[in-house]
Order: sequence, then structure tokens, then C-alpha cells
Amino acid sequence: MNKIIGIVGGMGPKAGESLHADILRNTRAIRDQDHLHIILYTNSTIPDRSDFLTGASQSSPAPEILRSLQMLVQVGCAVLCVPCNTAQSPPIWDVVEAGFAEFAQGAELLNIVTVTADAVVRRHPEISHVGILATERTVGAGIYQAALSERNVHSIVPSESNQRHVQEAIFHPDWGIKAESAPVTREAIDRLHAAALRMIADGAEAIILGCTEIPLAFTGRVLKGVPLIDSTDALARESIRRAAGDDKLVPLVR
Amino acid sequence: MNKIIGIVGGMGPKAGESLHADILRNTRAIRDQDHLHIILYTNSTIPDRSDFLTGASQSSPAPEILRSLQMLVQVGCAVLCVPCNTAQSPPIWDVVEAGFAEFAQGAELLNIVTVTADAVVRRHPEISHVGILATERTVGAGIYQAALSERNVHSIVPSESNQRHVQEAIFHPDWGIKAESAPVTREAIDRLHAAALRMIADGAEAIILGCTEIPLAFTGRVLKGVPLIDSTDALARESIRRAAGDDKLVPLVR
Repeated sequence: MNKIIGIVGGMGPKAGESLHADILRNTRAIRDQDHLHIILYTNSTIPDRSDFLTGASQSSPAPEILRSLQMLVQVGCAVLCVPCNTAQSPPIWDVVEAGFAEFAQGAELLNIVTVTADAVVRRHPEISHVGILATERTVGAGIYQAALSERNVHSIVPSESNQRHVQEAIFHPDWGIKAESAPVTREAIDRLHAAALRMIADGAEAIILGCTEIPLAFTGRVLKGVPLIDSTDALARESIRRAAGDDKLVPLVR
Repeated sequence: MNKIIGIVGGMGPKAGESLHADILRNTRAIRDQDHLHIILYTNSTIPDRSDFLTGASQSSPAPEILRSLQMLVQVGCAVLCVPCNTAQSPPIWDVVEAGFAEFAQGAELLNIVTVTADAVVRRHPEISHVGILATERTVGAGIYQAALSERNVHSIVPSESNQRHVQEAIFHPDWGIKAESAPVTREAIDRLHAAALRMIADGAEAIILGCTEIPLAFTGRVLKGVPLIDSTDALARESIRRAAGDDKLVPLVR
């Protein structure tokens, strides 16, 4: 009997939907009935993660994330996902993990950052240097750097000016991906590609796309021969593995 | 306080995800927190609708749809959606409606067919003839014809050979939309457009796209000046209206 996958969505609402899509795409299925059970809770009352981390707001997202997780566990979910890289920063995630342990009853809570770092070393055990393409907040929190370091991989991050370009590519009110994603604008694509290519020139042998919006600016899983590791996709694959085992996974296309 | 929208997904799993996407797209929102609460339950144990209706299987989808609805009501959903046109056929839907009444406690169950017929007459009160583009099963069950007739609108359906082309455009194992949707193949687009254009030539003043896959073959909401009414989009807009009122709806682009 396969386990039910629970997704705490709403951070933003498109990120949860993308994870749902990535789970369907990565599941070995021909008929509707071959798919896994998934419950996506798009909870729009979770406070802004960045505002809390910068001190602009005192409202921690942790209690509402926990309430959502508890509801999902109560209705039978046993593999839980929180598709938001920023939410894995210690001031939020430490509270979530501790609270989750109190009602988990055997359910597993996946961490998008550690799952992505695991995917890097499992898929590319020979690699020693990995670039990180993510928001200022995620890069600044150092969560990917710490996870990679624990796995004996060195991190490469964008220069200050390139990181500013990455931020604009995501958040610019006119041409950023959050504002304009169908299709992603030339400006956003150019800035993200430039930042990625610079990290490749600096020695990155793989690039983590550590933000839900960033993969939309790249076609395919490779840039100049360097693999791109999409954190949402890595979380989708790990959730399938935990819910139903390796046999249920569509093979990775290299 | 806005109501929570519950979606029984899994018929197929992409249809539920599309409804979630259409709700986000039709919601007036700038920040993550402006969105509505949505719970999408992708339940892959719901038996095949067509197999039951044709008698190929004795397993009715109704009990599992009901169990899913009950779970969603128990966790607080008050506006319930079942995004599958075929599931609204009387042998399935009559059982679902009767069972739902027993645990509804004030929650509302939307019917994608009546909601779409309502959208036609609300948006285009002057129209008297409407074409129906849907699977053989949906057209054969006559559910759209009945809903339109109750609203004093005449139905136009494809000829037998065109209906076969529509069916192929959705289900063909090589080039049908269920097999190949990114992008939709030329063959599928050509057959669906030909069937729609024929109905327009026969007097259709609007066309209902009464199947989740069909809208993927049309760019925009108009064909030769004739409005296309997407049933998933109509269900999304009605669910927003019931959950949060008209003010939360993005205005319709004509």
C-alpha cells in the first residue's frame, strides 16, 4: 500500500502546484489509477517568510505551517513536503521540525534543501563544486552551503552584483518571473543564464536551481554540459520514492 | 471570512491540477496571502468513469468520490468541486448528490455542467445556439444538452465522423492530447478546430469546451469571433464567487 503525499502549499500557491505537477510527471503511470494519492493544501494564511526573516514582521510562518502539517497527518498523509526554500531557514524550520515531531506518528517530513543536496551527490558522486542559484534570502541564510558542505561538496555562489540580477529576475515588478512567467521575459532569462554561466566559469560542475521560479527560465536539465538540479523536481522524486519506492519513479533523463 | 474550496482530483490527476491553476489565475491577488484556501485531493483510487458507464466495469466511481468529498468537508471545505465532465452523468452524479446531502452541513457541491451552462447564459444572454465539444461519453450522456435546454438554449453537436475525430484528438495513443500535450500535436489541433468550425457553420454562436484536455488545443477564448467557454475555467470562477464573492474575481477578458 502506497503512502499518501501531503503538500503544504501557498508559499506561493504556484510552488505547491508545481510540486504536484512534478510528482505526476515523475510517476510511472499509464492510467489515472496508477498515480499516487496527493493532498495539496494551498494555505494562503501562512505569513511571508522573507518579512519574518528580515525582521520586517514579527509573524512567524512556523505555527501556520505546523497547523497545515497536522491537518495533513490527521487525514492520513505520511510523506510531508513544504515546497518553499526560504521556509527551510533555521529560524522557521527548527520550530517546524520540533513541532512536527510531536504529532508525526511515523509520518516523514522532507526538507527540500537536504533532499536537493542528496540528489546532487547521488546523481553526480564525482562532483566537488556546485553553484547555487536562489534568492538573496536563501543564499544569505547559507542553508544550501551547509547541506553541501556536510556532503563534502564546495559551494559557489554568485557575485554580489550577479546575485542582485538573480533577485531582479525573480522579483522585478515588470519583467521578473513572479510578475511575468508565460512566457518568461528575455531580461529574466538573460540575467539568470549570465549568473549561471559565471559560476560555471568559476568551476561549478552542477548548478542547483534553489527557487521554484528559476527553473522556468531554463529549457532542459543542462547548461553548457553542466547539469541543473531543480529543487522542486528533487523533492517530487524523493516524495515518490518514500511513498511508493524506486519502482514507481520514471527514470531520470540525463 | 472566505470559504475553503475543496477539489476532488484524480479524474485524471491533471484535471484537478488545472482547476487549481484556473482558480489561482482567476483570483484577484497580488501577494501570496491574497489567494484563497484550496485543498486538492488527488485520489487515484476512483474507478474509471467511462468503464462504469459503458458496463465494462461494475465498480461505480460514486462511493470513492463521496468518501473524498466527506474528507474535504470534515477538514473545513465549504465549496466542493469535482472536475470531471463524465462524472456528472446521472448514473454516477445522482448517487454522489444524494450521498453528499447527508454530510454536507451547509457545504455546496458545484456541478461542472450546470456551472458551465450558467456561464454561457450569463456571459452571452443573446445566444440561442451553442456547440458542444466533449468526449463521446459526455455528448452521448446528453448532460450538456439537458442543461442548455433548461436554459432555453439549443445544442449543436458534431456529426458522427467529427465526434470520432474529437475522440481521437483526445485519446489517440500517439498524437492525442492525453498522450502528447507539451505541445499539443498538429493532428489533434486540426481535428478539434475542424469540428468546432463545422458547428459554427451550422449556427453555433458559442462553443463549450466540455473536457479538461480540449482547451489545450485552442489559444485564446475566441474562434472566428465565436466565444469558447472552457468548463474548467467556468468551474474555477464559480468556486471563487461562492467562496469569496464577485469582488475576488479577476474580470473576464472578452
